[in-house]
Amino acid sequence: MFKNILIIGCGMIGSSILRGVISQKLCKSIYVFEKNSKYKKQIKKINKKIILIKKLDKEISKMDLIIISTPMSEYEKIILSLNKNLSHKTLITDVGSTRTNVAKLIMEKLSKKLNWIMSHPISGSEASGPKYGSKNLFKKKWCILIKNKKNKLLEKKLSRFWKKLGSKILFMNEEEHDKIFAITSHLPHLIAYNLIKTSQDFQKTNKKNIIKYSAGGLRDFSRIAASNEIMWRDVFFNNSKNMSKIIDLFIKNLKNFKIDINKKRNSLLLDKLKKSKKVRKQILSLKQDISKPNFGREN
Amino acid sequence: MFKNILIIGCGMIGSSILRGVISQKLCKSIYVFEKNSKYKKQIKKINKKIILIKKLDKEISKMDLIIISTPMSEYEKIILSLNKNLSHKTLITDVGSTRTNVAKLIMEKLSKKLNWIMSHPISGSEASGPKYGSKNLFKKKWCILIKNKKNKLLEKKLSRFWKKLGSKILFMNEEEHDKIFAITSHLPHLIAYNLIKTSQDFQKTNKKNIIKYSAGGLRDFSRIAASNEIMWRDVFFNNSKNMSKIIDLFIKNLKNFKIDINKKRNSLLLDKLKKSKKVRKQILSLKQDISKPNFGREN
Repeated sequence: MFKNILIIGCGMIGSSILRGVISQKLCKSIYVFEKNSKYKKQIKKINKKIILIKKLDKEISKMDLIIISTPMSEYEKIILSLNKNLSHKTLITDVGSTRTNVAKLIMEKLSKKLNWIMSHPISGSEASGPKYGSKNLFKKKWCILIKNKKNKLLEKKLSRFWKKLGSKILFMNEEEHDKIFAITSHLPHLIAYNLIKTSQDFQKTNKKNIIKYSAGGLRDFSRIAASNEIMWRDVFFNNSKNMSKIIDLFIKNLKNFKIDINKKRNSLLLDKLKKSKKVRKQILSLKQDISKPNFGREN
Repeated sequence: MFKNILIIGCGMIGSSILRGVISQKLCKSIYVFEKNSKYKKQIKKINKKIILIKKLDKEISKMDLIIISTPMSEYEKIILSLNKNLSHKTLITDVGSTRTNVAKLIMEKLSKKLNWIMSHPISGSEASGPKYGSKNLFKKKWCILIKNKKNKLLEKKLSRFWKKLGSKILFMNEEEHDKIFAITSHLPHLIAYNLIKTSQDFQKTNKKNIIKYSAGGLRDFSRIAASNEIMWRDVFFNNSKNMSKIIDLFIKNLKNFKIDINKKRNSLLLDKLKKSKKVRKQILSLKQDISKPNFGREN
């Protein structure tokens, strides 16, 4: 399908793409650019075919597809190397979790002759690093592609690439994407971080070790709040406008719950608690989760 | 160990006790009082030995141990039957998630001659009903017993009972219990409900079906928010003072996160996000969860 593919930044997501590309034989030669020396050792163990390159210099001009899977705060520096060394023949994509900021960066900084179509595979976990990657990470998961008016042919090519890794494709524009993922992904992560922060504050004030009793709910949030901090700082900063609005709505609703509880508004509270089940049912019917009850993951 | 055991209210938790009691042979005869006819059918299928009783009348005087596992809002009615029919010989316990309210109820409504020691097994799931019960539900999980000055012998007896079901025992007083579980269990559940409510509001305003994209975080919260609404209404109402305080702290912290994001306070935000990992590490080292990363439960 491609002759040469380069993956820039090879952590959990990058190495999952790497593993998928090798397993599906999507190119003749596979190249990786990774700065972290611990990660490099882990990458070498994945497959002997992998070629680790040391610099983003003129060698990269031969790449047919470049996938950037570094934290988004690295993009600006990378773009300088792309501008210098690439031609229109290379298809560039990335896997960042916010899209408006990258659309802006592409418009302002990327050479007009180059082709970058943004991807966002909706898959991940709290684990960081190439040893946690899996060739199956994208299987049956959505991959959002940001609509590109400039080059429909490359759009199709990229779409086919993700399909080969097992993804289901959806097209969106960048504003729509950032609005939707503010509520389905970015807010849940911030809330998890905030709950852990609140429990740490509680622990300090009350001098009680509460972690022992975390099985009743807290531990599930602690998993999400153990996600990569660089990645999530980038997401929060880059989607701050949508985040602000949705945080305000969240706080408004939480204050209402507090009033319901304090005023013992029985039927109103019961009604709200019941309605959540509808969302759960929709999620299950759309196969975004399995219905098997969770009794704690050790069971 | 006991001659006759009665379980009042036999949903997911009650039926797990039931299964454990039968499997561990903890009594000669096992009785169940359950009003829901669908549940009754499911209970009959568990084991032929189970005796379903229709009323809480004088027949219950022969019980050595009674375990109440109904929603807490049922307790007052049940206490009337206990007062009428029991003597000091019966050990009474329950499995409610808040304890100060039940301590008060016992003091005000229960006949002084009767013995009720409160339990709170820290285990559960989003599933309701006896068919989801498991004899292993309590294995290696904490069971909190509320200190009882009146009768240390019965306290030991109850402690042995839970240990036979696999629990590890911890003693607390009711105020301490309610303060700790407000943060480790009650707030996480309310937050999950509130996140789902917020996503429903978002969906209405924006006329977008966002459920499709829930794999990035929202779906984990939707599971918790699918828990039994009667049980959680009772918990929220009965622990409203502790909940109020902890909701206020949560909102204060969330507002600070919002400022961090909007003002792009880089090192402050990174520091906070990093610190969450410490809690995760503690939870794993205390074996309250497993370290295997979660890529979505279908994998």
